[in-house]
Amino acid sequence: MKNIITISREFGSGGRSIAKEVAKKLGYEYFDVEMMERIAQMKGLEPEVTEKEEEFSVRKSLFGYSFMGRSGKETSMENYLWNKQRDMILELAEKGNCVIVGRCADYILRDKENALHVFVHADMDYRAKRIVQLYGETNEAPEKRLADKDKMRKANYEYRTDREWGLAQNYDLTLNSGKLGQERCVDIISGLAMSE
Amino acid sequence: MKNIITISREFGSGGRSIAKEVAKKLGYEYFDVEMMERIAQMKGLEPEVTEKEEEFSVRKSLFGYSFMGRSGKETSMENYLWNKQRDMILELAEKGNCVIVGRCADYILRDKENALHVFVHADMDYRAKRIVQLYGETNEAPEKRLADKDKMRKANYEYRTDREWGLAQNYDLTLNSGKLGQERCVDIISGLAMSE
Repeated sequence: MKNIITISREFGSGGRSIAKEVAKKLGYEYFDVEMMERIAQMKGLEPEVTEKEEEFSVRKSLFGYSFMGRSGKETSMENYLWNKQRDMILELAEKGNCVIVGRCADYILRDKENALHVFVHADMDYRAKRIVQLYGETNEAPEKRLADKDKMRKANYEYRTDREWGLAQNYDLTLNSGKLGQERCVDIISGLAMSE
Repeated sequence: MKNIITISREFGSGGRSIAKEVAKKLGYEYFDVEMMERIAQMKGLEPEVTEKEEEFSVRKSLFGYSFMGRSGKETSMENYLWNKQRDMILELAEKGNCVIVGRCADYILRDKENALHVFVHADMDYRAKRIVQLYGETNEAPEKRLADKDKMRKANYEYRTDREWGLAQNYDLTLNSGKLGQERCVDIISGLAMSE
């Protein structure tokens, strides 16, 4: 029985949709960056930080971007966010019965026996079609948008965890959603969560 | 329906046993390096090359070890073996209904729509216990034996494929056999092979 599921994913692979379906199927609570922001806002921790801004802040940090934290000490924006989100993830995990998308949750919860860590990926063609369908065309080719987003996620993950993004050994299960199909991915993850 | 299954694995993870069980369950033929050698011997292609020797030959090749091929032209030992095994794997895949362990089969058959590519891994503790149970104690600590073997497999794979060993994106499915259990791994692989 695994009552914490973390799902990391390549952009456009459908990892987020799979996570939502898994949560529905198991009756677990679903959390992604937007949900966490809402909680943080309710708690008055952090007003408006979008995923895009956070990932951008990591890029900026390479050039010394910094942020004045609430403690009054100068702390980098990304460290402030990282600490807040890590605390929130640890808190969610204590309660259990949750599916957490992204946020390096696989790393933060790597020692939890009752966690199942999943990575979802798919080939470029599948993801390109999917993001155009979901988010529409932009001036940039979908392949470029995917490559940029992956690069950012990879950089963010590796910066935070000192582990390689997408390496099988970091996860209990990785799935090619393009080849296997979203539904089958949902079934495998839910099945594993429910099994003894 | 996937009628070709390739299984790559970390040493000691039980990938080979899982592959045998999957083959039995699906009624597919099972192939690993020993089976391939037996076939090669029957065909008179290559008399006695063990997995150990082959992996060793890759190491040797870094220092220019070479081998006189049957064609009379000088060719490296590892290239000779690689070509023979690649041809054999392509031949097996043509027939289908097979489970192939190791030999970079995931790479060789990467474009086959009817193939399912699997990587099996487990953490150091699990694998260390397992190899001592299976192969007994030696003068070397099990962790050292694992690290050496993994290093060799990784080097061999990366030399042959220009891809990173163990990267999720190279496989349709990767499984932590230590965490999930061998039986569940067998069930997931067989289930995926049989599903539409």
